[in-house]
This record gives sequence, structure tokens and C-alpha cells, in this order.
Amino acid sequence: MNETLLPTDVVGGTFWLLSIAMIGATIFFLLERTKASPRWHTTMTLLGGGRLISAIHYHYTKQMWMDTGTAPIILRYVDWVLTHPMQIVLFYVVLAAITKTSTALFWRLLIGSLVMVIGEFLGAAGYMSATLGFLIGLVGWLYILGELYMGEAGRVNAQSGNDATHLAFNGLRLIVTIGWAIYPLGYFIEHLGGGVDVNSLNIIYNLADFLNKIIFGFVIYRAVMNDTKVHS
Amino acid sequence: MNETLLPTDVVGGTFWLLSIAMIGATIFFLLERTKASPRWHTTMTLLGGGRLISAIHYHYTKQMWMDTGTAPIILRYVDWVLTHPMQIVLFYVVLAAITKTSTALFWRLLIGSLVMVIGEFLGAAGYMSATLGFLIGLVGWLYILGELYMGEAGRVNAQSGNDATHLAFNGLRLIVTIGWAIYPLGYFIEHLGGGVDVNSLNIIYNLADFLNKIIFGFVIYRAVMNDTKVHS
Amino acid sequence: MNETLLPTDVVGGTFWLLSIAMIGATIFFLLERTKASPRWHTTMTLLGGGRLISAIHYHYTKQMWMDTGTAPIILRYVDWVLTHPMQIVLFYVVLAAITKTSTALFWRLLIGSLVMVIGEFLGAAGYMSATLGFLIGLVGWLYILGELYMGEAGRVNAQSGNDATHLAFNGLRLIVTIGWAIYPLGYFIEHLGGGVDVNSLNIIYNLADFLNKIIFGFVIYRAVMNDTKVHS
Amino acid sequence: MNETLLPTDVVGGTFWLLSIAMIGATIFFLLERTKASPRWHTTMTLLGGGRLISAIHYHYTKQMWMDTGTAPIILRYVDWVLTHPMQIVLFYVVLAAITKTSTALFWRLLIGSLVMVIGEFLGAAGYMSATLGFLIGLVGWLYILGELYMGEAGRVNAQSGNDATHLAFNGLRLIVTIGWAIYPLGYFIEHLGGGVDVNSLNIIYNLADFLNKIIFGFVIYRAVMNDTKVHS
Amino acid sequence: MNETLLPTDVVGGTFWLLSIAMIGATIFFLLERTKASPRWHTTMTLLGGGRLISAIHYHYTKQMWMDTGTAPIILRYVDWVLTHPMQIVLFYVVLAAITKTSTALFWRLLIGSLVMVIGEFLGAAGYMSATLGFLIGLVGWLYILGELYMGEAGRVNAQSGNDATHLAFNGLRLIVTIGWAIYPLGYFIEHLGGGVDVNSLNIIYNLADFLNKIIFGFVIYRAVMNDTKVHS
Repeated sequence: MNETLLPTDVVGGTFWLLSIAMIGATIFFLLERTKASPRWHTTMTLLGGGRLISAIHYHYTKQMWMDTGTAPIILRYVDWVLTHPMQIVLFYVVLAAITKTSTALFWRLLIGSLVMVIGEFLGAAGYMSATLGFLIGLVGWLYILGELYMGEAGRVNAQSGNDATHLAFNGLRLIVTIGWAIYPLGYFIEHLGGGVDVNSLNIIYNLADFLNKIIFGFVIYRAVMNDTKVHS
Repeated sequence: MNETLLPTDVVGGTFWLLSIAMIGATIFFLLERTKASPRWHTTMTLLGGGRLISAIHYHYTKQMWMDTGTAPIILRYVDWVLTHPMQIVLFYVVLAAITKTSTALFWRLLIGSLVMVIGEFLGAAGYMSATLGFLIGLVGWLYILGELYMGEAGRVNAQSGNDATHLAFNGLRLIVTIGWAIYPLGYFIEHLGGGVDVNSLNIIYNLADFLNKIIFGFVIYRAVMNDTKVHS
Repeated sequence: MNETLLPTDVVGGTFWLLSIAMIGATIFFLLERTKASPRWHTTMTLLGGGRLISAIHYHYTKQMWMDTGTAPIILRYVDWVLTHPMQIVLFYVVLAAITKTSTALFWRLLIGSLVMVIGEFLGAAGYMSATLGFLIGLVGWLYILGELYMGEAGRVNAQSGNDATHLAFNGLRLIVTIGWAIYPLGYFIEHLGGGVDVNSLNIIYNLADFLNKIIFGFVIYRAVMNDTKVHS
Repeated sequence: MNETLLPTDVVGGTFWLLSIAMIGATIFFLLERTKASPRWHTTMTLLGGGRLISAIHYHYTKQMWMDTGTAPIILRYVDWVLTHPMQIVLFYVVLAAITKTSTALFWRLLIGSLVMVIGEFLGAAGYMSATLGFLIGLVGWLYILGELYMGEAGRVNAQSGNDATHLAFNGLRLIVTIGWAIYPLGYFIEHLGGGVDVNSLNIIYNLADFLNKIIFGFVIYRAVMNDTKVHS
Repeated sequence: MNETLLPTDVVGGTFWLLSIAMIGATIFFLLERTKASPRWHTTMTLLGGGRLISAIHYHYTKQMWMDTGTAPIILRYVDWVLTHPMQIVLFYVVLAAITKTSTALFWRLLIGSLVMVIGEFLGAAGYMSATLGFLIGLVGWLYILGELYMGEAGRVNAQSGNDATHLAFNGLRLIVTIGWAIYPLGYFIEHLGGGVDVNSLNIIYNLADFLNKIIFGFVIYRAVMNDTKVHS
């Protein structure tokens, strides 16, 4: 860390922002876990643990940015391959906390999210054509959306009759619909479209991660606390 | 960390002081959280978590100061954009712990504090004129003060009839009135006034952070412990 | 950490992946420990502690990979000599949590796993012939398999009549049968067969560790949670 | 950390000793806090937190010693300005745990200890004459001693009729009388007397900190545990 | 950490092994502390805390070994002067947990162990003749053995009539008799005998620490868990 951060280095600033915000969110969710009713403990563990993983990635990315002025995209994929399935599995964990849910749903969500991340990675790293990787990734994402809106996950949510879960489920679904669009979009622009200024892409990815991980986390947190207040 | 700290490097000394004091305050608030009654746990989490975020920033700033003799102002803004809203949101959390409070208040306080920090940042980084940034930041701060003295927050506090909350709320309001004045003031002097010795500015910002974060925290802590003693 | 990670450095990527996933798994198991019923606490401690040890090793290996482009095999042996016995001892701990189990079984499992790792190490480091080291390591592994399928461990499991334990025991046994085959296999290829591209070997070892440590851990976690739900 | 520690580097050895002993004491007090009865929790938090702050300072001082062969005195003052008031405030916290104690006592003790440290700092750093700084520091220390022997603190202790508190209070008072004499003494020798070998001064300060922080801590710990045993 | 670890660097390998094993043991004992019955909590705190101190020392020694190929003996003494008294004090803590034990025993054990370590240090560092240092250290060790076999400690153990304590006490006594013999022996060979290959000495000290700290710890752990099972 020999170089200073220039006041005008907004990309570096967003790396710092994400890096520290992830640590704050980790601590917040892990401490508040003890306040949630026990059936939400695994949800809170996943929330805090996922933020911790991102905090570590952003810590290193931030340092690399300061040392070299670049942020290796492979670190983002390492982060995504771990945290995106954790986020999607949270839909299952949230439903399973309040109602009977089939294990098959867990596996379908897990595999869908892995297909999305790994497909994009293989395309981005050149192990398959960029177009094929894009399409595979897109299929994974659309499959998850289908599961959440029209599949078993959506049905279980609709039938649960639990206000807190509705709040969490619908909020998360919206984030996965809108916020996650940034990942295929960014991929498309970078690898298939005309390319983009790498700085803009980093800022966009950083802000998307803020929405998709931290705000996403607080939506769940709020639902958990509402449910804890009602049922205890 | 190859350079030693000279005995006369008072700026560096205050960076060290803040950096370590923030760690001590973090540990103190997070441990004492278990002693507070449950309804104050989120308050204590925010207190400890906010101090942790500042501890990380001061840790890096201190190291940069020792390596390069400068402290990048953008790190302060990254810290402020995270911790100032957390401080302002604490007014809502403190009120919500003991009485029914509207969610709209939460959003108004959050947005007010974000306007203050982001306005100043955009002016300081040159994305808009320094004067405009100053005015936007000032509006955010004045809006918060209005909310705290004459708006819903002030009314809820007045009607709560809880001595501990009065103590916390009034103490915090005083700090936000007097202690936070340093931020627009420092901004004005640096960007609009005749400029100032950067060392003096750093010492002033550091001591202001000591007041606005650590002393601020102990005022809340004291109120929390008073309320815990009375209601348990 | 002066060098950046290239997007095509898949070996480095898997080191990162393992390094961070181990941290995530550590946090997960240690936090969820409080949710398990007390008789499973030592099991969860060993799960989390073992992952922590691997996290530390992968942290250093990852850094060395980035600095020098090599990953010292001795670090793997230091990891294996600590974590493999911990994994095998888990069979004893899982059985002892629900039924009376002889201390002798503990010692036989511990010694069997130490023979496996130390035999291979002595051969790999040239303290004995590579063939002899391979055979000693193989004997250790086969002895453990014999104990798990036909020895006291297998019998105690069969007689326990506890569904959760059956699930854990059989799952783990399968992993030790299939997943652990990678260690003698990798050894054979490296030291006795025609040799292999060191990059491929690193990727294979990394993915094997993901299976043998993290997935292995979640199989136990699931059994622990099932048993906790049934008996509390 | 490029230089090794020579076997004859006793100064460096005492820095290491303090640095590690402070970590051990931090862990010890923070863990044993859960064993103390609740009314002593804040006492234990301050004990552990104060040791943590010193651990951080000694960590950095030790590293600087190894890198440069000097230990910046300003780091000691940063440590003292934080930990000495915490130690003195402990007298108030110990008394308040078992009897009614006026808030004014808290402030008098806090200000007295701040006067002691800041006076000496201003003299040592050259912001005022060395003699004046010495005298101001001396006044702060004597004021505290007066408060502890003849003032409200001494009276409250005498009237508390609690054996554990007597043990703690009298032990602590002895340490503040004898052990703290090293700070004005060291200051006098360094700045007003004929000067002293800086190595001897570092060893003396280090051993004094061992007495004044770690042994001091165990005296309180023992009283806390005695009281916990009697009243629970 | 610029140098890689060679596969044949067995000394370095044992430093790594100890360094990581100490971390694992720390986590294990500190987590399992919550499972022990309250009267054993201080025992577990000392077990975990002592391992943590050694973990820190081995962490630094390992790094120095990799950077310079030497391991400063003074770091071992800093470790021993902290952890050996902690180990010996554990005899007192184990006895005091189940029976009435005189405070004088605590002080005699503490001082005996300090005499042992400090005597050896003064001889090794050349502050007194190597022979005198050896004899003083030997006296400290023999005094402790006398106390454990024939003195108050031995008598209290014999009269306690508690199986768990017998198990712990006798196991620990055996380790202090046999395992600790390595310290005067190593000292004798190094300073008084014909000298020895420094690499062999490091390996022997490392393995002795594994026995005297980690295995020692698990003997106590086992006794604690037996007693917890019987009395709760």
C-alpha cells in the first residue's frame, strides 16, 4: 500500500466503500443474529457469512487496485461463484424456516445459480465462445426467475400466509430480477457489445454489489425482525 | 511502516489516537451490548459497528500518513458516507426502541444525512462547483436539525416520557448541532475560504470525530444503561 | 502481493476459491454450533476448527502462488497431517455423541490416519523410497476403510439405530472411499507414474479438498441438524 | 520484519514480552468476564479493553523497534492518554458496582488522570517548558492520590463494607502510589535530570507497564471473583 | 514472505506445523470451554490463552525462519517465561476447581517455574555463567517436581478423591517429568555439552512443545469433560 488514494479516484473510492461496508454489514448481521428467533439463525448466518466472503474479496481487490490500478475480473468470479449460490439458497432457507419445503427445490436453486456464474466464467475466460457462455449464464438466471415467480418457490411463498416471508421473498425476488440483470448486462457489454470503459464497469459492478448484497441483506433482516416480533 | 513517528508529529499522533480509540470503543460497545436490555441491542450493534468502520478507516489513514505524510480526504468521505447516516439513523433506532415511530422518519433521516455527505463530496471532488456542493451539504444538515428540533423526531422524543431517551436524544442533538458544524465549516474553509494549513484541518477533523463518534457513543451508552437499570 | 491475478490463471483462481470458501465454512460451522444440541458441540467445533486450519494453509499457499507461481507441497502435508486425522477422528466423535464407543477405536482411527499421511510424506520428501512411502500410506488408508466398513466403527454405526448418524456415517464413509482416493492417486502419479503437469495436480488437489473438507462438513452439518430437530 | 532479534537484545525482548502478555491478558479478562457476576461486567470490559489497547501499541512499538532500533515516545503517550484514564476510571467503576457513588467522582478522577498525562506530554513534546509539564503532571497524579486516600473515593471504599472491594481498592491504590511513580520519575530523569540511557528507560517503562496494567488487572480480577463467589 | 518453503525443509515444516496446530488448539479449547461445567472455565481459559500465546510466537518464528533461516532463541524464552508459569499454575487451578487449596501453593508453583525459565535465560544470554544458569533452572524444575510428587500439590491431589482430577494431575505430572526434561537437556547440550546441530535442536524443541502444550492440553480437556459428565 505504497500509493495514496487520489481524491479524484472514484473507482478506488467505490472499492473502499464496498470493502468497508461489507465488513460493517458482516458485523451487523452476525450480531443481530442473536436477536432473531432461533428459526432464523441459519438465515442470519448465511447473511453474515456471505457478506464476510465479499468483504475479503473487496479487501484484496481494493489493495490490488491501489497497487496496480487494475482489479482482476477473476476475483469477481471467485466471489460470485461462492456468494451468488448463497444468495439464491437463501430463498430456500427463508421458505424452509416457516413452512415445509422440498429438498429438490434447494438443489434446483443451487444448480441454477451455479450454471449462471460458471457459464459466464467459462465464456469470459475463453474456455468456450463468449456468446455460448453468455447464453448459458442467461439460462441459469432465467431459470431462477422462473422458479421464483412461477415454480415451487413462488407457490410455497404464496401459500405460506406469513407476512414477514412475503415481504422478504417479494423484495428479494425484485432484487434478483432487477439488480442481478447487471451481471449478464455487464458481461454482454464487455464481451459481446462494443466494450466499455473498464472504470465505468467497475463502478457499476461495485454499486450493483452494494444493492444485491447489502440492501438485499437488510430486506431479509427486516423481515426476520418483523417475524421475530410477531412470533415471540 | 518503515518510518518512525517523530515525537513532534502531533498530526500523526492524533491519527494514532483516533485509530486506537476507535478500536477500544468498538470492543467496549460490542461487549456491553450483552448487558443492555434486548430492546437496545440494535442500538448497541450500530454503536459498535459504526466505531469499527471508523477504526478501519483510521487504521489505513494512519498508515498512509506514516508512509507518505498525507491523509487522503477521499477516505474521510468514504467513512462519512457510511458512518454519518448510521449516526443519524440512531436517532430513529433510539426512538423506535421505546415508542411507536413511523418508518417515514427513518427514510427522511437517512436521506437527509446522505444529501449532506454526498453533496459535500461532489463539491470537494469537483463534480459540481464547490459552492453548490457546500450549499447542498448545508441543506442536508439543516434539514436534519429541523427534524430533530421541530419535526417528527423532536415530537416523538418530547412525548415519549422516557428519561433515558430524553437524555440520549437531547445529548445527541446537541452534538449534531455543535459537533457536526465542524464538517461544513472545515469544507467552507478548505474549498471556499482562504484555505487552511492541512495539518490543522486534520487535527480538527480528528478531534471532531472523537467528539462526534466516541463521546456521542458514550452518551447513548449511558442512556441505555440507565434505561436497562430502570426497566429490568 | 505485488502481482495481479490474470483472468486465465485458473490454478490461482482455485487457490483463492478454496482459501475463501474455507473461511466461509469456518464461520458457518462455528456459528451454527450454537444451534446444534449440546451433544454435537464437539463435532461442530472440530468441523469449524478443521476448516480454519485449512483456511490458514490456503491463505499462505495462495499468497505464495501469487508471489512465486509455485505452491510448496510441504504446506499440503502440514495441512494434511493436522486435518486428515481430525476428519477421521470425527467418525469416532459422531458415534460417541449418540452411543457408547470404545476409546480404542479413537486411537486406531487416529493412528491409521497418521500412518497414511506420514507414510506418504516420508516417501515424497525422500526419507524413504517413494514406493515404500506409497505402500505405507496405502495401508493406512485401507485400514481406515476396513474399520469403517467391517470393523468396530461400522458395527457401532449399524447398531446405533439413529437415522441422523446413519446419514452422516454413510455419507462420510463414501467421501473417504471415493474422495480420499485422490491423495494416493495423486501421489502415485507424481512420484511413481509418469509424472503430471503440476498445475493440473494443484487443481485436482484443490477440488478434492473442496469435496473432502467442505462438502464433507455439510453432510455432517445436515445430520447434526436433523438429529437436533428430532431430539429436542 | 526483516531483521532478526538478537539473543542479547533485552530491550527488544521486553517489547515482545509486553506485546504478547497484553494479548494474553486481553483474552483472559474478556473470557473470564462471562464468569463474573453481571454487576462486574463493565469492570471486566474495561480491564480487557484497556489491555487490548496496550497490546496494539506494543505490537507496533515492537515492530518499530525491530525495524529501526527506536521506540517512538509519542506512541507511549498515545497509549497512556487512553489507558491511564481507563485505569483511574476503574476505581469509580469498582466502587459504583457495589455502592452508590456520585457522578462527580467519575469526572474528577477522569480529569485528574488526563491532567497528569497531557501535562507530561506537553512538556515532553516541547509545547511548554519541561519543568512546567512535569509539575502539571505531578499535580494530576497527587490529586488522584489525594482522592484515593482522603477524598470521596477513599471514604466510599471505607464505608462500603465489602471485602472484595477493599481488596481491589487497596491493592490498586498501592499500585497507583508505587507503580505509577515510575512515570513522573522517568519523565524527570529524561527531561530534567542528567538524562538516562534510552534502553534502560525502555526496559523500566516496559516492566512498569507489566506491573501497572497486567498485575493491576489480576488484582481486580481476584476481587471480582471473590465477590462473585460470595454473592451468587 | 518472499521465499518459498522447500519440500526438504523439515525444520521449517515443523515451525509451520506448530504454528498452525497452536491456532487449532486455541480455537478448540476456547470453544469447548462453553461445554465444560462453570468450575472448569478458568482452566479452559488458561488452556486456550496459553495456546494462543504460543501460536503468536510460532507465527513470528515461522516467518523469521522463512525470511532468514534462523529462529531467534530469545523468542522461545519470551514464550517460555509466559507459558511455562501458566502451565504450572494450571496444577493449582485444577486442584482449586474441586477442593480447597492454599494460596501459598499458587505462589510456590509460580515462583518455581519463573526461577526455572529465568535462570536458564540469564545463563543463555550471558548475564551469568552458563553453568550457574543451568543449575538455577534445574533447581526450579526439581522444586516443581518435588511439589507435585511429595509436596502440598501431591497431597491435595491424593486426598481429593476425584477421578477426573487424578487423571489430569497424574497425566500432567508425567508430562512435566518427562516432557519438560527436554528444556534443561537442550540447554545443557547447547551451552555446556559439545553443542548440537541447531536444526536438530529446533526440531526437538518444536516436537517437545507439541507434547508439552498441545497433548498436555488434551489431557486436561479430557479430565474436564469426564468431570463435567459426572457432575452435571
